[in-house]
Amino acid sequence: MTTDRLIDAILQKKNPTVLGLDPQPEHLPPEMIAEAAMEYGETLQALAIAAVRVNEILIDALHDIIPAVKLQLACYEQYGPAGMVIFAETIALAKAHGMYVIADGKRGDIGSTSAAYSAAYLGRVPFGNKLLPVYDTDALTINPYLGSDNLAPFIKDCQEYDKMLFILCKTSNPSSFEVQELIAGDRPLYKVIADQVSRAGSKLVGSYGYSSLGIVAGATQPSAIKALRQNHPELFFLVPGYGMQGGKSDDIALAFGKYGRGAIVNNSRGITCAWQKTGQPIADAARQAAISMRDDLRTHIVLL
Amino acid sequence: MTTDRLIDAILQKKNPTVLGLDPQPEHLPPEMIAEAAMEYGETLQALAIAAVRVNEILIDALHDIIPAVKLQLACYEQYGPAGMVIFAETIALAKAHGMYVIADGKRGDIGSTSAAYSAAYLGRVPFGNKLLPVYDTDALTINPYLGSDNLAPFIKDCQEYDKMLFILCKTSNPSSFEVQELIAGDRPLYKVIADQVSRAGSKLVGSYGYSSLGIVAGATQPSAIKALRQNHPELFFLVPGYGMQGGKSDDIALAFGKYGRGAIVNNSRGITCAWQKTGQPIADAARQAAISMRDDLRTHIVLL
Repeated sequence: MTTDRLIDAILQKKNPTVLGLDPQPEHLPPEMIAEAAMEYGETLQALAIAAVRVNEILIDALHDIIPAVKLQLACYEQYGPAGMVIFAETIALAKAHGMYVIADGKRGDIGSTSAAYSAAYLGRVPFGNKLLPVYDTDALTINPYLGSDNLAPFIKDCQEYDKMLFILCKTSNPSSFEVQELIAGDRPLYKVIADQVSRAGSKLVGSYGYSSLGIVAGATQPSAIKALRQNHPELFFLVPGYGMQGGKSDDIALAFGKYGRGAIVNNSRGITCAWQKTGQPIADAARQAAISMRDDLRTHIVLL
Repeated sequence: MTTDRLIDAILQKKNPTVLGLDPQPEHLPPEMIAEAAMEYGETLQALAIAAVRVNEILIDALHDIIPAVKLQLACYEQYGPAGMVIFAETIALAKAHGMYVIADGKRGDIGSTSAAYSAAYLGRVPFGNKLLPVYDTDALTINPYLGSDNLAPFIKDCQEYDKMLFILCKTSNPSSFEVQELIAGDRPLYKVIADQVSRAGSKLVGSYGYSSLGIVAGATQPSAIKALRQNHPELFFLVPGYGMQGGKSDDIALAFGKYGRGAIVNNSRGITCAWQKTGQPIADAARQAAISMRDDLRTHIVLL
């Protein structure tokens, strides 16, 4: 089961960090944009080239200490088709370095359309008797608003290709309460969603006791994280919001289950843009920030 | 305001139909795939080429009678970067033929990421002093699960570039009730969402009285459509689910407001795959199906 693969990768590096590779134009070094513009002009393609070069530097610098990457699809889509070329290149590079790859697309649609999303990120597209992989990431984030027939095609590919899903439950943004904390019956909506995810994944539990259907639970929501972990020891948590968004490691520790397992914490700008604060080269600043995050997490989470 | 542009386009053709261009591999004519494969091999690119050729035929055949197209992003994403190339080509072709273009991506994320999605589909990406358009569609579908800070960047681009949003409210799939009909306070969740959309769009009402922030309300949900229309005369409805999914025109009539305005009805396979049923050439079968849908809608909706 894929949850086992992810947990093994975390245990091997003793680091429950996922590196968020979210190349926003304002976070690319101006000299790298200028260099790409010499070749491609002031185009989306030049921005995409600069972005993938930064990703290469980051993956080279961090793959031995960070087990996984999360690629925010919006940040690639904004560069047009060239953005999807570098999305694929970044995935290939991360995989070649043994990293676990999460596509953060928050997709969700009616069944036949979800099947197309699933084919794009987790499964295969049929061509005659062939099955063609597309982006072939290890996991995808999912929006739960459309219900279980949205989930079904993704779950099928999880089983067939050993993949993982993270369904949005309680997100890290300030307005997440507006919908996610509406009281549905006796519970806030995000708890209803967690229960739905738990049921849908009950047959997909790996040998560490975690289901291939995990949830997104933001680091900025400690009371929600605590309640979700108590109710659902079997759910793996993808935790965004550490660092720049204000999530603290002692709160985040609440997301983890027995033996310091069952969660992975995302950091994007805090690592990838560390060079903007320190003035060091990208690789050095990122490595220092990554080590300090790892050590910060380790003060509260004992990984066995 | 963009709602006016869309309503003008509908009035001009006296047809509240939006053509869904959702090229699934199993709906592409085998001989067109084979022809593309001669040039590109058995690849995703060959499928993408076949798909865009079908889109060209459909736009050529229908642009004088159908005012708008809706492109389901999943169906393009599944062909990899080549899929996004033909997504852009299809948009350009539809615009060149005067059609209104809706990107159906059901996107939603935290604010800074939503800004990237909005740049990709509605706004611009900054490059020095330049602002580069990316896909530059007229409207985008949005998932409401993350709340108002998700919506904010999209709304900003709606104002700046005269665009429109359709926020998922009550979708057409069988499991839509699981989340969308949970009772939050005194109302089902989808009504709470509609109220949120209405408030968020209150300053974006065009001269026909409709806001640039519309909703998605599935044709398979007549009682929901009726209630939503009664509560919200100012919301424009994008109505999926006609035809193949079971939505009937007399139910769909409930989505329309005064003078037969305020809604547009999507049909994808019912038009684009009509050739599979009739054995006619794609263009002829599609045109016949489109005319019969238009006339079916007109029996229940009087457009003034």
